[in-house]
Amino acid sequence: MQAVGHMAEFALCPRYERAIAVLGKRWTGLIIRALLDGTCRFNGISSFVPGLSDRLLSERLKELEAEGIVQRRVYPETPVRIEYRLTPKGEDLRPVFDACQHWADAWIEIQGLEPR
Amino acid sequence: MQAVGHMAEFALCPRYERAIAVLGKRWTGLIIRALLDGTCRFNGISSFVPGLSDRLLSERLKELEAEGIVQRRVYPETPVRIEYRLTPKGEDLRPVFDACQHWADAWIEIQGLEPR
Repeated sequence: MQAVGHMAEFALCPRYERAIAVLGKRWTGLIIRALLDGTCRFNGISSFVPGLSDRLLSERLKELEAEGIVQRRVYPETPVRIEYRLTPKGEDLRPVFDACQHWADAWIEIQGLEPR
Repeated sequence: MQAVGHMAEFALCPRYERAIAVLGKRWTGLIIRALLDGTCRFNGISSFVPGLSDRLLSERLKELEAEGIVQRRVYPETPVRIEYRLTPKGEDLRPVFDACQHWADAWIEIQGLEPR
């Protein structure tokens, strides 16, 4: 039988578990990536992420707003302009995505694509 | 109308897209995290990731093996011993998961948990 202290060492960090639940959701990683690249209009994000429907993009943006990762700004112009930006919490995800891109460059092979 | 060069700049890197598709899949991030921590038996991973059924864990491990991220080793003992380990490709994910943990520690609040 393992001691409680030992088991606790192996338990999953609830913060990490929550982060993975938020970031690992389908499309979310690609949407944040678009925003990290400076894309901020709905249609811009939409064309950045092929295969993502407008309905799902809208849903995901609302979730990210609720998580405090994305801020939605409405500019009362004609026609109305809506922009999505990363909050400081969202901007702080850059090292996560940089590390992911670095790994992808090193290890993911795509047919017809030159190695980096 | 945007120039093609400009649009290409905004297109999603196919390597990154593939990486996200692999890593973002439900439970996969938590399973890799368990393996990064040195857990290597099926039951160990299973108890590390509460809520994950044995059927799904087995499926995910097979997918990670097919991706070259996990290696399954069978030791012909009695009873037979099976261990799962990260390959070099899998070990190279450590910076991604470290960055994710760092972000979670800084930004994710869990009720009843002291801030780090």
